[in-house]
Amino acid sequence: MKVNTVRVRVRYPEVDRMNVVHHSNHPIWFEIGRTELMRDLGIPYSGLEAENLFMPVIELGVRYHGSVRYDEEVEIESFIEELKGARIRFGYRIVRPADRKTLAEGLPVRFPARLREILLSAAAAPGTEERS
Amino acid sequence: MKVNTVRVRVRYPEVDRMNVVHHSNHPIWFEIGRTELMRDLGIPYSGLEAENLFMPVIELGVRYHGSVRYDEEVEIESFIEELKGARIRFGYRIVRPADRKTLAEGLPVRFPARLREILLSAAAAPGTEERS
Amino acid sequence: MKVNTVRVRVRYPEVDRMNVVHHSNHPIWFEIGRTELMRDLGIPYSGLEAENLFMPVIELGVRYHGSVRYDEEVEIESFIEELKGARIRFGYRIVRPADRKTLAEGLPVRFPARLREILLSAAAAPGTEERS
Amino acid sequence: MKVNTVRVRVRYPEVDRMNVVHHSNHPIWFEIGRTELMRDLGIPYSGLEAENLFMPVIELGVRYHGSVRYDEEVEIESFIEELKGARIRFGYRIVRPADRKTLAEGLPVRFPARLREILLSAAAAPGTEERS
Repeated sequence: MKVNTVRVRVRYPEVDRMNVVHHSNHPIWFEIGRTELMRDLGIPYSGLEAENLFMPVIELGVRYHGSVRYDEEVEIESFIEELKGARIRFGYRIVRPADRKTLAEGLPVRFPARLREILLSAAAAPGTEERS
Repeated sequence: MKVNTVRVRVRYPEVDRMNVVHHSNHPIWFEIGRTELMRDLGIPYSGLEAENLFMPVIELGVRYHGSVRYDEEVEIESFIEELKGARIRFGYRIVRPADRKTLAEGLPVRFPARLREILLSAAAAPGTEERS
Repeated sequence: MKVNTVRVRVRYPEVDRMNVVHHSNHPIWFEIGRTELMRDLGIPYSGLEAENLFMPVIELGVRYHGSVRYDEEVEIESFIEELKGARIRFGYRIVRPADRKTLAEGLPVRFPARLREILLSAAAAPGTEERS
Repeated sequence: MKVNTVRVRVRYPEVDRMNVVHHSNHPIWFEIGRTELMRDLGIPYSGLEAENLFMPVIELGVRYHGSVRYDEEVEIESFIEELKGARIRFGYRIVRPADRKTLAEGLPVRFPARLREILLSAAAAPGTEERS
């Protein structure tokens, strides 16, 4: 399975008074990862929108395993977890590069079915890197 | 079960280019609702933090049923869904006042156990309004 | 001069690790105030957009005089500071209700000229409350 | 004068229904630039905070010259504009790499004086790259 990895550095306003990234930022990070994964698959999201194909999120889940602090760099790993049935499910992991600890996981996020075919063919295209 | 209702008006930057509230804002609305529910229960969250009791979110889930648009007013309904076991689970609904349509639901959000007792006693206190 | 006052309560993610509202939130508050002022003047912003009249901000200034903390309620006071010349300038004050202290001021924010006439006539309409 | 350049890609929720980056995001970008400039100068901001030196923004100004769209990459150029007197003033430019167009400028942002000496000595250190 193709995995896209993109690195972000924690911004000052993303951190709350507990000195950890507020839980509402993780869905934004997942979206950054999904955007890069789709670019990798040859179907940039901005291009889809130019053709009036929008992908509203219809379900979201996050499990928080560890704190992320200001100015820390984390990796967003994104992958297509399921293409069976009518739904697309993306999965995500927020990983601390230093010790490879998973700080948060994005539970499968469902999207409307209309983009399933596009992704299905793109994901199955030859030459995609395997996830170890 | 006690339900707290608080009304918010959609802010301009909460809406994305699809002209709907971006999915990362709903967890912020749930947190507003939870804050008001706790104030209602007589345990304001700011007071807990003053005593160094913090409540990091450890799991989050959202189901999106309908779009919310700029300048629309919505109601955030918050309630304690489960106090059994070691976890507290809050539930949420985002409701459009005009037709009572549920636009989004917050799936049970788990919190660390240390605040369970405080909430348990508060929720069980006499005089709390029943949820219909 | 007409002044609109709207009250907001500080949200948890608006506060940073210094335990004060991050400076990027004040422009969002000013926009909430401007939206309510325009609604008051009988020209709701959502209505303008429905007619494809958009009002991008072209200049912004903020002076921060005091800290605003989590869960605090503040008043956003908004007024039209200048309609002379080709530009509209809105002014704002963030005020703490308890002691009427001004916590932040929005320096005149310029907007494109195309909406000047609409606002000019609305602001000059009889029956608008005077600013003390 | 030392100029730090850092590149960011526009995130989906940063864009509003006009399909341009909402004006409240530019101060966050300026802060990213300032953070990298200070890291460059050998005084990482996270280190200052570890020593309980905080730098609340006390004045902010932005001029918006052009629209920035979803998924676009922009460069944040940050520099110390003034160290005379008691205040530090940082300056910023948001630049589109393709045509070097300045999309926004951060007007001098004032900070409390207590960090002036630290920055003054760091900025004057030998080996800093000149701004063309």
